[in-house]
Amino acid sequence: MSEFSLIDKYFSQLGESRKDVIIGVGDDAAVVKGGDGELCLCVDTLVRGVHFPDNTSAEDVAYKSLAVNLSDMAAMGAQAKWVTIALTLTDLENESWIKAFALGIHELANQFHVQIIGGDTTRGEQLVVTVQVIGNVNNAITRCDAKPGDAVYVTGTIGDAGIGLQRANSSGNEDYFVNRLNRPKPRLIESQLLKPFMNSAIDISDGLLADLNHILENSRVGTTLDLSKVPFHPLIKNNLSNTQDCIPLVTAGDDYELCFSVSSSNCEKVEDIARQNNFLITRIATIESIPGLRIVDEHQREVFITRKGYDHFTKEG
Amino acid sequence: MSEFSLIDKYFSQLGESRKDVIIGVGDDAAVVKGGDGELCLCVDTLVRGVHFPDNTSAEDVAYKSLAVNLSDMAAMGAQAKWVTIALTLTDLENESWIKAFALGIHELANQFHVQIIGGDTTRGEQLVVTVQVIGNVNNAITRCDAKPGDAVYVTGTIGDAGIGLQRANSSGNEDYFVNRLNRPKPRLIESQLLKPFMNSAIDISDGLLADLNHILENSRVGTTLDLSKVPFHPLIKNNLSNTQDCIPLVTAGDDYELCFSVSSSNCEKVEDIARQNNFLITRIATIESIPGLRIVDEHQREVFITRKGYDHFTKEG
Repeated sequence: MSEFSLIDKYFSQLGESRKDVIIGVGDDAAVVKGGDGELCLCVDTLVRGVHFPDNTSAEDVAYKSLAVNLSDMAAMGAQAKWVTIALTLTDLENESWIKAFALGIHELANQFHVQIIGGDTTRGEQLVVTVQVIGNVNNAITRCDAKPGDAVYVTGTIGDAGIGLQRANSSGNEDYFVNRLNRPKPRLIESQLLKPFMNSAIDISDGLLADLNHILENSRVGTTLDLSKVPFHPLIKNNLSNTQDCIPLVTAGDDYELCFSVSSSNCEKVEDIARQNNFLITRIATIESIPGLRIVDEHQREVFITRKGYDHFTKEG
Repeated sequence: MSEFSLIDKYFSQLGESRKDVIIGVGDDAAVVKGGDGELCLCVDTLVRGVHFPDNTSAEDVAYKSLAVNLSDMAAMGAQAKWVTIALTLTDLENESWIKAFALGIHELANQFHVQIIGGDTTRGEQLVVTVQVIGNVNNAITRCDAKPGDAVYVTGTIGDAGIGLQRANSSGNEDYFVNRLNRPKPRLIESQLLKPFMNSAIDISDGLLADLNHILENSRVGTTLDLSKVPFHPLIKNNLSNTQDCIPLVTAGDDYELCFSVSSSNCEKVEDIARQNNFLITRIATIESIPGLRIVDEHQREVFITRKGYDHFTKEG
């Protein structure tokens, strides 16, 4: 089957059929009505063997590649609407793989009311998936506006995906942690609810320490992070014997939880919103005016960490 | 140097500094003012060894990967404004390669007043460049509205890039045809001038026959293409000894010229516009109501061709 036919067959009707899409998949470019507010755009690439294990299923590759981009939109406080997908396939990805990939995209796209409006399919030596999400935003939340005195929160639990990565080869996809690695939940709904109170936000892709540090550096502020305040899943927490055990969890990355700061006067409000809407947020630190990320244990003793998070260009092994 | 530093250093200020860009490179996503008209979005991936020869320079890889997307915008009659770039680099692309790549992007982006507003840099086993261009359009030109009686035109000359590909390994980049392969000229200005008279349009990436056929199939019409009417560069034309010699030229692809149709009553107008603005357009055929692409020689004898153009999924060799 030719490239044209494959695209027609599996990609022309993915996700919700949005009324604002004028020209979708199949022409030189897509055309949409611009929508309300400013435009928000993000792009993220996933490479097999780098961003997901070789044995990840087509559905999970699809799900994750869209989810990580929806997570970026959540971190901006944006509404996601349209998606383009650029797929570089190898000889391993046959038609049934492509069909399963389309299903994985469709499932998540429907859930968040986004439509796939364009794409490109090419052949290469390694599976590479680049997804772009476009939507609208009013008063985007950036990494630059954390203020001294702000409370720092994270959604969900940290380090689940790191445990999932360790288990991906031995456990099946039924494993809770492997599922957290392969199918991160974009916090778009949480972000829309909390946005009025967020001063700064980022999604945790490189690891809590690295991403929190992005907020600190961009906002020219600092914080002291007590590792005992970081929320871990009970099954993980029960196996932690000392502070050093936490470090892989806060540097592993792939959490796709939000890390955000709010003025201290708004702490009660955001905690009420989370409780009422049945999602977890945890206050982990307070922004300080002295720049830098200082890490301590529950006795306030400094913890030294050399590798602050995941970085493809400096990662060893 | 880390991924973050590389992006900061070379990608934060590429192309024109547009006033409608609110948040550019460096946050979770970019934010721009929506602009006038509907949004137009396209994405194209270039893979080393597939879409450009292994020895193509970083500047040329950059130039081409942006140019092919600007060409898609031209084919829609859209105005290009914003660009995102997803780069999967191998160990071969060192910092000087990235610097040269940024220069290649910057040169073309400046020329067409577009700004790079976002991107992602990853590591993989093969160089893959995915570029997305976003802009505005009013009344986009599609592949679906060619009408019987329409005159079919192409801009520029056809087959230059095909010759360039043959020579890429032996000639230097000084060669005219290699330059046409590596640095296709997006026909954005031509498209804006001719747009009021275009009924349908496509850019020629897969080869004249394949792309003309896309217009015919999508518009449910046909045409008879006399190969002797196709414009070839004089240096090519002088070496053509028979009709069969034309076939590689009209199937090679990578021309990035526009193929478009206009009502016969507008032929004089579009030819005047091209003459006054000093660019070449050539009428090559007339749309017929009987579907299908019929290819003939100058004596109106049918020419049979099995492979109608470039398709990564069916291409041999």
